[in-house]
Amino acid sequence: MAHEIITSVQNPLVKRLHQLLDKKGREEQGRYLVEGAHLVEEALNSGAEVTTILYDQERSLDPACQRALANHPQATQVIAASAAVLAKLSETKSPQGIVAAVKKTASQWDEWVDKLSAKENALLLFLDEIQDPGNLGTILRTAEAAGVDGVVLGKGSVDIYNGKVVRATMGAMFRLPVFSRELAATANEWKQQGGRVLVSSLAQDSVSYDQANYCGKIALVIGNEGRGVSKEMLACADQLVHIPLYGKAESLNAAVAAGIFVYEAQRNRRQ
Amino acid sequence: MAHEIITSVQNPLVKRLHQLLDKKGREEQGRYLVEGAHLVEEALNSGAEVTTILYDQERSLDPACQRALANHPQATQVIAASAAVLAKLSETKSPQGIVAAVKKTASQWDEWVDKLSAKENALLLFLDEIQDPGNLGTILRTAEAAGVDGVVLGKGSVDIYNGKVVRATMGAMFRLPVFSRELAATANEWKQQGGRVLVSSLAQDSVSYDQANYCGKIALVIGNEGRGVSKEMLACADQLVHIPLYGKAESLNAAVAAGIFVYEAQRNRRQ
Repeated sequence: MAHEIITSVQNPLVKRLHQLLDKKGREEQGRYLVEGAHLVEEALNSGAEVTTILYDQERSLDPACQRALANHPQATQVIAASAAVLAKLSETKSPQGIVAAVKKTASQWDEWVDKLSAKENALLLFLDEIQDPGNLGTILRTAEAAGVDGVVLGKGSVDIYNGKVVRATMGAMFRLPVFSRELAATANEWKQQGGRVLVSSLAQDSVSYDQANYCGKIALVIGNEGRGVSKEMLACADQLVHIPLYGKAESLNAAVAAGIFVYEAQRNRRQ
Repeated sequence: MAHEIITSVQNPLVKRLHQLLDKKGREEQGRYLVEGAHLVEEALNSGAEVTTILYDQERSLDPACQRALANHPQATQVIAASAAVLAKLSETKSPQGIVAAVKKTASQWDEWVDKLSAKENALLLFLDEIQDPGNLGTILRTAEAAGVDGVVLGKGSVDIYNGKVVRATMGAMFRLPVFSRELAATANEWKQQGGRVLVSSLAQDSVSYDQANYCGKIALVIGNEGRGVSKEMLACADQLVHIPLYGKAESLNAAVAAGIFVYEAQRNRRQ
């Protein structure tokens, strides 16, 4: 562990890490920022490539993170910094005293989907322009908890490496294969491999979510918070599925809808 | 409609409305702020007592709100104001050009629960210290959509009149009976009236949510985001219920869990 202590927010490393708060900086550096001891620990334990950890010198390095570093040795810079530096790199009201820069991982879709082809009841989640960072992060958290095999993010989705998304995943993003791909093309490819596509939609000919056929290899599609699922994805659908609304609400929150839909698929398939 | 136009953020009415952004001000005035044309329209159409509407003079008053005002005549002050005034009263990044002050409504629990006693399959939701405003609002939105009869908020809950809660409900709070009450006492009262209490808990003796008995009059209990349900509420439980976690996640988001739980209760009871 280095004994250097960074106290200036003008330090070049701090400036470079600060760029990761913006999408442009994340794309240029191929890295993103993770804040808080629990998320840093999860990143290390999941085998993510953690290039740099900055921790508040007054709070010292979290013991769980120390253990995770020892168990997953890699070329991580671990540097103490002042509270002011940590505050500069924080997006939360109460800076948590630790941030890490983590390399983006590019999962190979072709390879992954080939491996998955052996799994008779593979379950994918397709997200069609989810815009709200909290929703995207919560959906990834739910997907991982529900045992979804992988998630495909279409164009127009909020950046998965956005800090709010990362925090809302509660670490699930380190463990869940997530792919950024053109959705309709991927859905059609999935269908050619024997998969079916179930699309969440309030259209008239959609069946209640508890009456749908969830057998075999399936992909569930969740649409944009305001507009729902795109025409292209509706055209791909083997089945349209809706969650009934018994009150006067016009819709459910996208993350809640995704949770009900995914858990019903798993419940149905367990029986 | 008044022809006065408020342009100063120092205007006494603006100052008074600004106090409603804080819990203290809301308690003193017995009112809360609602932002955005859709929510103001919902408030009017649901019969809420809207004391004041301020709208951006450059955008004019939303037509749907005008109709709602005409259909629900009451002593509402409707006043044009400058964009700066609207911005001062806004909690969102893009002020929506309209805010309204709405009187808090005190639903009478005893009266309401007496009426409900005739309903054989009444469904209540008890929220035990939900802290995150987005979660509380989303839960209320989901509860209304799922046909929940009423919601009981225990002590330690985030203020339901907090702006983030109000926005996340998407108007559901105007249509859903919500009571602030001591949870364990209310649960015991509910049990004396023949209701059962199902508590969300990851404790070992809890049954999977899809194996629970949802018959008759029931109350579902959702706990705090970090700590779960309190000991008092665990002691009240007729049944402990959990949503299985198939991945490595330690928990689901509280609003997602509430959605899955409530919709499973309704699905089960429809069969």
